[in-house]
Amino acid sequence: MRAGQAARRPSLEFRLPRPAGTFTPVQPIQAVRWAPDGNAVRIIDQTALPEQFIERDLRSLDDICTAISSLAVRGAPAIGIAAAMGLVVSLAAFDDATLDDLRARLGVHVHRILATRPTAVNLAWAVNAVAAEARQPHASAGDALRAMRATADALLADDAAMCRRIGALGESLLADGARVLTYCNAGALATAGIGTALAPVYTAAEHGRRVSVVACETRPLLQGARLTAWELSRAGVPVRVITDSAAACVMRDGGVDLALVGADRIAANGDVANKIGTYALALLARHHGIPFYVAAPTSTFDPDIADGAAIPIEQRGRDEVARVGGRALVPNDVPVDNPAFDVTPAGLVTAIISDRAIHRPPYRFVA
Amino acid sequence: MRAGQAARRPSLEFRLPRPAGTFTPVQPIQAVRWAPDGNAVRIIDQTALPEQFIERDLRSLDDICTAISSLAVRGAPAIGIAAAMGLVVSLAAFDDATLDDLRARLGVHVHRILATRPTAVNLAWAVNAVAAEARQPHASAGDALRAMRATADALLADDAAMCRRIGALGESLLADGARVLTYCNAGALATAGIGTALAPVYTAAEHGRRVSVVACETRPLLQGARLTAWELSRAGVPVRVITDSAAACVMRDGGVDLALVGADRIAANGDVANKIGTYALALLARHHGIPFYVAAPTSTFDPDIADGAAIPIEQRGRDEVARVGGRALVPNDVPVDNPAFDVTPAGLVTAIISDRAIHRPPYRFVA
Repeated sequence: MRAGQAARRPSLEFRLPRPAGTFTPVQPIQAVRWAPDGNAVRIIDQTALPEQFIERDLRSLDDICTAISSLAVRGAPAIGIAAAMGLVVSLAAFDDATLDDLRARLGVHVHRILATRPTAVNLAWAVNAVAAEARQPHASAGDALRAMRATADALLADDAAMCRRIGALGESLLADGARVLTYCNAGALATAGIGTALAPVYTAAEHGRRVSVVACETRPLLQGARLTAWELSRAGVPVRVITDSAAACVMRDGGVDLALVGADRIAANGDVANKIGTYALALLARHHGIPFYVAAPTSTFDPDIADGAAIPIEQRGRDEVARVGGRALVPNDVPVDNPAFDVTPAGLVTAIISDRAIHRPPYRFVA
Repeated sequence: MRAGQAARRPSLEFRLPRPAGTFTPVQPIQAVRWAPDGNAVRIIDQTALPEQFIERDLRSLDDICTAISSLAVRGAPAIGIAAAMGLVVSLAAFDDATLDDLRARLGVHVHRILATRPTAVNLAWAVNAVAAEARQPHASAGDALRAMRATADALLADDAAMCRRIGALGESLLADGARVLTYCNAGALATAGIGTALAPVYTAAEHGRRVSVVACETRPLLQGARLTAWELSRAGVPVRVITDSAAACVMRDGGVDLALVGADRIAANGDVANKIGTYALALLARHHGIPFYVAAPTSTFDPDIADGAAIPIEQRGRDEVARVGGRALVPNDVPVDNPAFDVTPAGLVTAIISDRAIHRPPYRFVA
C-alpha cells in the first residue's frame, strides 16, 4: 500500500515499542477523523489556533481542497490522511452510479486534490492508495466506495500507529532533562496520532522523563508559536517560544541539547525537504555541535528522487509574509519571496527517525 | 565630543568621499529634526509604518522616553540624536531658573533617558555630550540651555555627515549589479542622515550603479519588512522582502553577493552587538562564502568593553513576539524569550565600515 520503504538500510538500529500497558498514552488532540455520520472528514481548523478551537466537517471536493490549500489541515501525514478520507466522502453521491461513472469522476477528484500541495509526497501516496482500490474489480460503485473507505480507514489507523512507533524509537534519544529545539509543527496536529517530531517528546514524557521544548515560531505562518506551543502546553509538556532568528543564540548559550524536526519529503540520499528555515537551523546546529534529528514516517521517503535538487518547492502567496491579523507588514509596492520549504542536505542530518528504525548516515533509501 | 575613536587601527583603507557636485544626494526622509518652533523634536513614528506616515513632536521628558522605549524612534544613531535633542527641549521650562536648579533637574532627565535602552552606546554618548555642556561655566540657565542646544545641533549635523562618509567609503564594496542582503533597519530611518548600512547602497545608487537589496523581515518587530523596504522603495532602490529563515536559501542559491548590516555597539575586539538574528546571519554568510559587512559610526564603538561578552543585552516584552496587529500568535500560558540583540563574534565580520575607514581584522579599537 505504500511506496518508499527503506529496504537495505545501510545503518539502522531497531528498537521495539514498549508494551502498551506500561504507560498512559498521550493523545493531545485528534487532528483528523471521521465525522460521526461517516460522511465528512472532521478536522481541527489550524488557521484559527491558538485563539479559537474550531472543528470543521469537510464533505465536498471543494471543502477538501480549500482546507488543504488554506492550511486548515496541514502537516505531511495529516494532509495525506485527510485527502485520502476526503476523496472517499467527496464521491459519496456516486454510491448508486455505475462503476465507470465513479471511476471517471474519481480521476477528476484525484487530479484536483493532488494539485493542492506539490511538495509533500504523503499526499500523493495516500490519495493514490485509495484511488487504486476503485480500479480493482468491484460488483458496484457502492462496493468500490466501501473498499476505498476501508483503505482510508487503514491509513488513518496506520498513521496513529506510525506515530507511536516513531515515539518509541525516538524516545531513546531523549535523556531525562532533555531540552529539544523544534521547528514548525510536526506534532499531533500534523498527523492522525501523536505526531512525528513530537512523538518522542510525548513518549518520553509519558515515561516520566522531564523533557522540555523550545519552539521556533516558524515564520511566516507561525506554526511553531501557534500550533506546537498550543498542543504541547495542552499536554502538559513545558514549552517556550522564540523567534526563528534567536535559535542560534539559544544554541550558543547551551539552551538546547538537540534539534528534532519533521519532514515533508526525504530523497533517496537522505536530503530532507521541510519547512523553510530548516536548512538554516541544521547549519546552525552543526556549527554549535548540536545533534540534528529528523522524524518522519517511511511514507515521507521518496526513493524515486535521488537527491533534494529534484524535490519541487512550493511557492506560496505574498500575503502570508506581508500581512498578519489584517495588518500590512510590507509596503504594497515591495515584492516578497515566500518559498514554503527548503532542502537540508543529508550531511547535516545526524539521524532520521522513521516508524521502522533510527537511520544513520550514509542514507540510502530504496523502493 | 565622542568616545570610541579607532586610533591605531591595525588595518584600514582610507577612501575620500567624491566631490559633492558629482551626484544628486538621496535624502529619502528625515527621521529626526527640530520642529519649526525649535521647542520639540520632530520624529517619524516608526511604529506606524508602512501603513501610516505620521510625524510626532516630542516636547516633554515623558514624550522622549516613551518614543524611545516604544521604538517610535529607533536605530542606534537616531536614538542618540533624538535623546540629545530631547534632553534640551525637555528642560525648556528652566530657561529662567537658576543654574543649580537646571543642573539638578538635568540629572533626573539624563537618568530617565539613559534607562530607556541599555544596549546602544550612542544613546549614552550623545546624552552625556549635551549634559556636559550644562556643567561648563555659564552666566545663566538660559546660556547653558543655548550651549546644550548648540551641541545637540552639532550632533544632528555630524550624524548626517557621518552617514555620508560611511556611504562614500562603503560604496567601494558595491559593484554595479550588487545584490545586498540586509537585516533590520540601518537606514535613513535609523539616523539623522542616509543611514549606516544603507548609506553605501544609497551612495552607489546615486552614482548610477544598479544595486538591489534583499531585506530580511527581522522578527519580532519587522523593521526590515516595514522600514527598510519602505525607505528603499520610496527612494527608488529595488528591494524585496524575505522571512529571516529564508536567508540561508537565498545565500545558497546565489541570490545575494554580500551582507551589510548595522550595529548597536562594537567592542574593542570587533565583536558586534546588533539586532537579534545578526549572529545567525553572519554564521550562514560565512558558511556560504558571502562577505559579511557591518556599517556603523565610530560613536558605536565602545573601546571600554573588551569583547562582546560584556555588552548588556536588552530583554524586551512578550507581546512583541506573541501578538501582531491585535492577533494572539502564542497561547497565553506559553512563555516567550525575546532578547532584542545578539553578539556576532569579530571573526565572522569581513570588515567594519565606519565614518573614518574600512576596518579589517584583526580589529583593535582603542579610546
